[in-house]
Amino acid sequence: MTIEEKIDYRFKKKELLKIALTHSSHSGNSTNNERLEFLGDAVLELIISEYLFLSHKLSEGKMTKIRSNIVCAESLSKAAYELQLGDHIFLGKGEIVTGGRQRKSNLANAFEALIGAVFLDSNFETTRKVVLEILASNIQLALSGALVKDYKTELQEYIQKNNDNVIEYILDRSEGPEHNKTFYINLIFNGDCVSHGIGKSKKEGEQDAAKNYLSKARKI
Amino acid sequence: MTIEEKIDYRFKKKELLKIALTHSSHSGNSTNNERLEFLGDAVLELIISEYLFLSHKLSEGKMTKIRSNIVCAESLSKAAYELQLGDHIFLGKGEIVTGGRQRKSNLANAFEALIGAVFLDSNFETTRKVVLEILASNIQLALSGALVKDYKTELQEYIQKNNDNVIEYILDRSEGPEHNKTFYINLIFNGDCVSHGIGKSKKEGEQDAAKNYLSKARKI
Repeated sequence: MTIEEKIDYRFKKKELLKIALTHSSHSGNSTNNERLEFLGDAVLELIISEYLFLSHKLSEGKMTKIRSNIVCAESLSKAAYELQLGDHIFLGKGEIVTGGRQRKSNLANAFEALIGAVFLDSNFETTRKVVLEILASNIQLALSGALVKDYKTELQEYIQKNNDNVIEYILDRSEGPEHNKTFYINLIFNGDCVSHGIGKSKKEGEQDAAKNYLSKARKI
Repeated sequence: MTIEEKIDYRFKKKELLKIALTHSSHSGNSTNNERLEFLGDAVLELIISEYLFLSHKLSEGKMTKIRSNIVCAESLSKAAYELQLGDHIFLGKGEIVTGGRQRKSNLANAFEALIGAVFLDSNFETTRKVVLEILASNIQLALSGALVKDYKTELQEYIQKNNDNVIEYILDRSEGPEHNKTFYINLIFNGDCVSHGIGKSKKEGEQDAAKNYLSKARKI
């Protein structure tokens, strides 16, 4: 089965599908999928926002949280995996031998780019239909609370390329009365403090520290 | 001139326009604009993403930055101000006497909600036309680099309700060789360290600390 058959959409401009599946490591002069990924992410955000708005009477805060559990690397790489997108991505040799076809970030990014490509090739309504079909199970999981974002696992996966890396979460201090303490966590990476986290529990503080480090690391 | 005339869109469901302009402080059983604001934000993100994608050959990183300077409180409150949206927002009395009609966050939120309402009342294509018309000058300013997000100013505005609040930015430490230092900044709020920032200059670290504090404060 081709990708087009799997997502039940036939591209008018086949070139867009090719760009969506081209990772930046792929050699040659071909355009990579980074710009389409940017567009696809915004398309997904709106489709999921609209769906949550219309179909469930959730508060704004609740919608924000559930959306972030649907439009995230964890959920989108799962969808990409089910479409076996990894087999179709154009990667550089170095990326292939280091497991690039299975890498969650590559899968999630290619998925976002694919949705960006469908949007450019068609329109919002058609893309909505494609997305709600593919992400149906992820949406149900997120609504049931089963898709909760785990930044510590994400960070572990992010740095696992180098097996010697050691991550520790150290409680710096806690403040406030017993029933309402705030915990300050330092994230130690190979002996250096690289980020801080704050939370109403140690676990929450650790998640926050991992999240902050990931967001910094990805900007660089 | 009515709002509908100003944005050149006539609502089929007038109720949506009313909800878009209803602040949470407004008394009575009327629905407030928080959910529409959530939707409208995602609508704006996609419209601006698509515009930047199609009309300018910018990198993904550059598009992200420019978009964040267009879809932000600063830029949207400016657009809302030009539409004189403040005169039409339904506010609680307490909010009115403390300057709620001029408050940037109220203006920006009502603007986002208004766009969310247009989207629900029509479709993506119609909303795109409305948005690109209203935000034309902001888009040009952002592309020229004139709309740069200033988190320190934003934080100052955010906390200014209480004039006794004092914010200080303290250099915790710097690390690395002279030509490539990293600066660690502590944000001190009324004597307590409330957030941290990291940057390649003190200024950048201060912006990061202000940004981190804002994002935490808004979650609470």
